[in-house]
Amino acid sequence: MSELRYLEDLSVGDVFGSAACRISHEEIKRFAAEFDPQPFHLNEADAERSFFGGLAASGWHTAAVTMRLLVESLPIAGGIVGAGMDELRWPKPVRPGDRLRVESEVLDLRPSQSNSARGLAKVRTTTLNQHGEAVQVLVANLVVQRRALEHTRPAGAGGVGAPA
Amino acid sequence: MSELRYLEDLSVGDVFGSAACRISHEEIKRFAAEFDPQPFHLNEADAERSFFGGLAASGWHTAAVTMRLLVESLPIAGGIVGAGMDELRWPKPVRPGDRLRVESEVLDLRPSQSNSARGLAKVRTTTLNQHGEAVQVLVANLVVQRRALEHTRPAGAGGVGAPA
Repeated sequence: MSELRYLEDLSVGDVFGSAACRISHEEIKRFAAEFDPQPFHLNEADAERSFFGGLAASGWHTAAVTMRLLVESLPIAGGIVGAGMDELRWPKPVRPGDRLRVESEVLDLRPSQSNSARGLAKVRTTTLNQHGEAVQVLVANLVVQRRALEHTRPAGAGGVGAPA
Repeated sequence: MSELRYLEDLSVGDVFGSAACRISHEEIKRFAAEFDPQPFHLNEADAERSFFGGLAASGWHTAAVTMRLLVESLPIAGGIVGAGMDELRWPKPVRPGDRLRVESEVLDLRPSQSNSARGLAKVRTTTLNQHGEAVQVLVANLVVQRRALEHTRPAGAGGVGAPA
């Protein structure tokens, strides 16, 4: 992963891509057994007869795998912290054996109104399968540290003190 | 859980509540190690110095636990299938030992324009900790089967055939 970026280091239109990672039958069923125990995520025969027409990963499993790929590919100083989502949808199911990767594009950047030490980056992260089809679209507002205050602390700038 | 509900069995304003479930240190770290390996989800000392001021569960872990509580508490025929989210945010961090429960309220109901066998229910699911504080707010559009077509199949109703 490249050097960590502060708010000032990002530009609208920047794109970050991840490596691919494979999701297995076993991982789909293990995640579902713990967090989303519905037949179409647990059992092939039940899944065939369901809305999904075959075993499909829980959308929350896709979201969790997406987060790991984001952590590996989006070099944000202070880590990846979501302040809220503008969009989260799963246009196609994730199937056993799919290889997923993410592409993240910076859509908007703005300093915080209430805290001069940080800002918000709106980022669209598209999770793609091995056929290039989008299986998840996430638009998140991420908390990003500002670089300036790492080095200078302007006199009279109130409210700067707590790391949060 | 009570009897399964079809679209016709739901009303705007219906509320469904779950039992509570506790999240441990170990669960927070295990989920984070697999899906969100950032210091503030993995290590107490690092977390103290972070944005969160102490160990906090990944938001995606909160979302996954919320899904399990939804599966246990929202009696929708055909299962809980999200067509998309209108809102997902985490107003407060989830801490080790927190006991979470969910409350789901039906906000809107409408038949599908393209498939007379189903419809959409907009449901707001609030995840609350033991102090009654919201730690996640999710507004999701769920695919819900319609009861009528379980029993009758009107002549000339095109496009009704595939279960999806």
